[in-house]
Amino acid sequence: MSAPLRRAACIGGGVIGGGWIARFLLAGIDVAVHDPHPEARRIVGEVLANARAAYAALTDAPLPPEGALTWHDDVASAVAGADWVQESVPERLDLKRRVLAEIDAATGPGTLIGSSTSGLLPSDLQDGLRHPERMFVAHPYNPVYLLPLVEIVGGRQTAPGTVARAIAILEPLGMKGVAIAKEIDAFVGDRLLEALWREALWLVRDDICDVETLDDVIRYSFGLRWAQMGLFQTYRIAGGEAGMRHFLEQFGPALHWPWTKLTDVPDLDDALIDKIATQSDAQNAGLSIRALERIRDGNLVAILRALKHGDGGRGWGAGKQLAEFEARLAAAAPQATGPVTREVRVPDDWTDYNGHMTEHRYLQVFGEATDAVLRRIGVDADYVAAGASYYTVETHLRHLGEAHAGDRITATARVVSFDAKRLHLFHRLTRDGVEIATGEHMLLHVDRETGRAAPAPDAILDAIRPLVKAATDDAVGRAIRPA
Amino acid sequence: MSAPLRRAACIGGGVIGGGWIARFLLAGIDVAVHDPHPEARRIVGEVLANARAAYAALTDAPLPPEGALTWHDDVASAVAGADWVQESVPERLDLKRRVLAEIDAATGPGTLIGSSTSGLLPSDLQDGLRHPERMFVAHPYNPVYLLPLVEIVGGRQTAPGTVARAIAILEPLGMKGVAIAKEIDAFVGDRLLEALWREALWLVRDDICDVETLDDVIRYSFGLRWAQMGLFQTYRIAGGEAGMRHFLEQFGPALHWPWTKLTDVPDLDDALIDKIATQSDAQNAGLSIRALERIRDGNLVAILRALKHGDGGRGWGAGKQLAEFEARLAAAAPQATGPVTREVRVPDDWTDYNGHMTEHRYLQVFGEATDAVLRRIGVDADYVAAGASYYTVETHLRHLGEAHAGDRITATARVVSFDAKRLHLFHRLTRDGVEIATGEHMLLHVDRETGRAAPAPDAILDAIRPLVKAATDDAVGRAIRPA
Repeated sequence: MSAPLRRAACIGGGVIGGGWIARFLLAGIDVAVHDPHPEARRIVGEVLANARAAYAALTDAPLPPEGALTWHDDVASAVAGADWVQESVPERLDLKRRVLAEIDAATGPGTLIGSSTSGLLPSDLQDGLRHPERMFVAHPYNPVYLLPLVEIVGGRQTAPGTVARAIAILEPLGMKGVAIAKEIDAFVGDRLLEALWREALWLVRDDICDVETLDDVIRYSFGLRWAQMGLFQTYRIAGGEAGMRHFLEQFGPALHWPWTKLTDVPDLDDALIDKIATQSDAQNAGLSIRALERIRDGNLVAILRALKHGDGGRGWGAGKQLAEFEARLAAAAPQATGPVTREVRVPDDWTDYNGHMTEHRYLQVFGEATDAVLRRIGVDADYVAAGASYYTVETHLRHLGEAHAGDRITATARVVSFDAKRLHLFHRLTRDGVEIATGEHMLLHVDRETGRAAPAPDAILDAIRPLVKAATDDAVGRAIRPA
Repeated sequence: MSAPLRRAACIGGGVIGGGWIARFLLAGIDVAVHDPHPEARRIVGEVLANARAAYAALTDAPLPPEGALTWHDDVASAVAGADWVQESVPERLDLKRRVLAEIDAATGPGTLIGSSTSGLLPSDLQDGLRHPERMFVAHPYNPVYLLPLVEIVGGRQTAPGTVARAIAILEPLGMKGVAIAKEIDAFVGDRLLEALWREALWLVRDDICDVETLDDVIRYSFGLRWAQMGLFQTYRIAGGEAGMRHFLEQFGPALHWPWTKLTDVPDLDDALIDKIATQSDAQNAGLSIRALERIRDGNLVAILRALKHGDGGRGWGAGKQLAEFEARLAAAAPQATGPVTREVRVPDDWTDYNGHMTEHRYLQVFGEATDAVLRRIGVDADYVAAGASYYTVETHLRHLGEAHAGDRITATARVVSFDAKRLHLFHRLTRDGVEIATGEHMLLHVDRETGRAAPAPDAILDAIRPLVKAATDDAVGRAIRPA
């Protein structure tokens, strides 16, 4: 294990340098910065503001006190005492070499030096340093404070242990250091991006589609897949039971079809098929195709649901599509006449580390049962848009049993009492007919403009009346008694 | 507007055909299927089982009753009466043309015919049909029941209104039909994928990385971005205030660098730069760079949080990375001595359509405050792993105000009373010092093996004692009073 990072230095504070600064500071690490650009402080400040907003919503654990940010007039004073120096100056070999030489001269051999370069070779960057053995490429992705990946690429003179040490140091920052085995222009990520980018330029140039259509093609399909599984794992699933080798053999002819402008193709011969199949087996050790499908689908559902709340709750991309799908389902649902119920299959992401449904998800299901009652009595989206609604003012929950991921649970709603302004509900939650929780709720009819309670119109009160079933058991109206 | 889909037919029931069948059935549409393959029913059954499991967790709205699935011995009886026929037979032009001719012969001209082909040209497929004007490519992505995208590509003989009609019919299924302006081998999505795939083959062949590393490079970086914004919108943000045109001008020289094997590059001349910049302006009308950054970060945070619960709660990919980051933060958090508090900035996805924090998120914050109390008294992950824990049995919430996205809210916890088995908590939630809610909670100390209440050890009780502050106001011990 490497010693944890105590002090970092960032040379270059643009969008990428600023992203590194934010990563370090928000993980509680002091950062010394040098950047002569007149706008550097403003740009870093903006990146940092974005990062702080993102981290406030990102983690359920308490963030450490932010590290201290200091600005320095020269490289030497910025890097003094740093455990890790990250160079993020503009992408010119001569400039980067000059800056790296300054860093090299001002730090002891124990200081790691990473370069944010997108494509220059580490061997070229480290050439001529006094201590090239601690220098490597650490190529991150924008926004650096959120995307975990850092490609770690050593050059000819990088010491064998340096790459592993860099990866270990990045881990506590929430970053995924990935070792690239051999240096090559643009490494791995940017090579993949560049191939796709060049193809995209052809498609737009030739009017096959415009940029918005091309973006939609990505973000409504393989972009969703790639947020959770990469190219090869996805194709392994596509190959199904026949296996990766069989799948790859089908691909052979396709490489000679005019499916892209990238026509310099490797020979997908037995040796390459064998290599990929063997590496894919290792990657997926212990994971059957069925298990991979289940994991993939669970991830896709969770991502779609997450995006449903994007753009300040309006929904974004595939999540907006899902929200519209749901709105259409809700509108098409028949007006039931029996008891108002809400049935849910407990999703994987509703459980805690014990595998039990988390406390607040009970209230979520009861809230949805309340919404179903409101829809039944005519308090729907149109009613709310017209200026009034029911707001919950008080809730009493009792837990009598447990629910686990995959369980089907049903909330059955009942109106216990009501008057012109108040609506008193009592929900029972059951799993296979066994009561596992109850929820008692008092709602007030509110004029949304004044924010004050106001009598509901007669049509609503008339719709409530048939749902009333007075309290007959002592679960209603109970208070918590002290220990 | 098109008439909604009432009855669909699927010719070919493999993984893609099965995905279409699941999409239709789960949207409440009857589907007639023909596939002579001996394993077709098993494969479709497995896809359908996956789809049902996914949909149970996908939507908060009630699903309609599933459509009826019928199997047919020949094409003609399957397609009779269908509004939409989807052809998903193996990728051979002669076979597809024969099947399409059968579909064409057995349906009236009002029936739409889509082909799932990944790359064959619609003009070639529709050639020779009696009614080619209603035939087009409808190319979906696996898993078809979850990924929204369908590339809609018309051929030379496709009628002008057919593509728009197809897109309108797919919309209520939760699918995003995207019109591709000109037919081309492999259309748009598979061209982008094929370029990246060929580059990936080179990287693995040349031992730059193995398949797992390549997959990680994708799913920890641009894969996360592309789940929510495509290539051009992402680069627009990267270009920042200088604008898309300036950004593209920087790209010119890179097209001649050896950054990919795709060396047949279009000339990024003024005309192409102008075209892209203009289309990008149209795509992002009304969205500043700052707004795009905020939306992007909100989406990325939500995706990372969603993946934290992947693989049955163990966390997956970048979400597992986040879970480990959080565990490290929690372990490193200092043992505070003052009042136990939990501070949260309300994330975008915690609000309802009114912009108010949703009911159950109040309980989530109170639950986190309860967890903080438990950690303070020594009930941490190790304690729970050793066999005992506190479970909530009763909760009473009062709502006194509102919280909105972006608000900083603080729950301050207090122990009201306790005995050997019981722990009685009272939390106050404030925004800028103003009380907006209270949460009263009764917890029981439970032996996790028996599931029954059991006395807590003295060390825990001793740790509770200094936190006790007896009830002095009437907010504690209150019950809901009927209307």
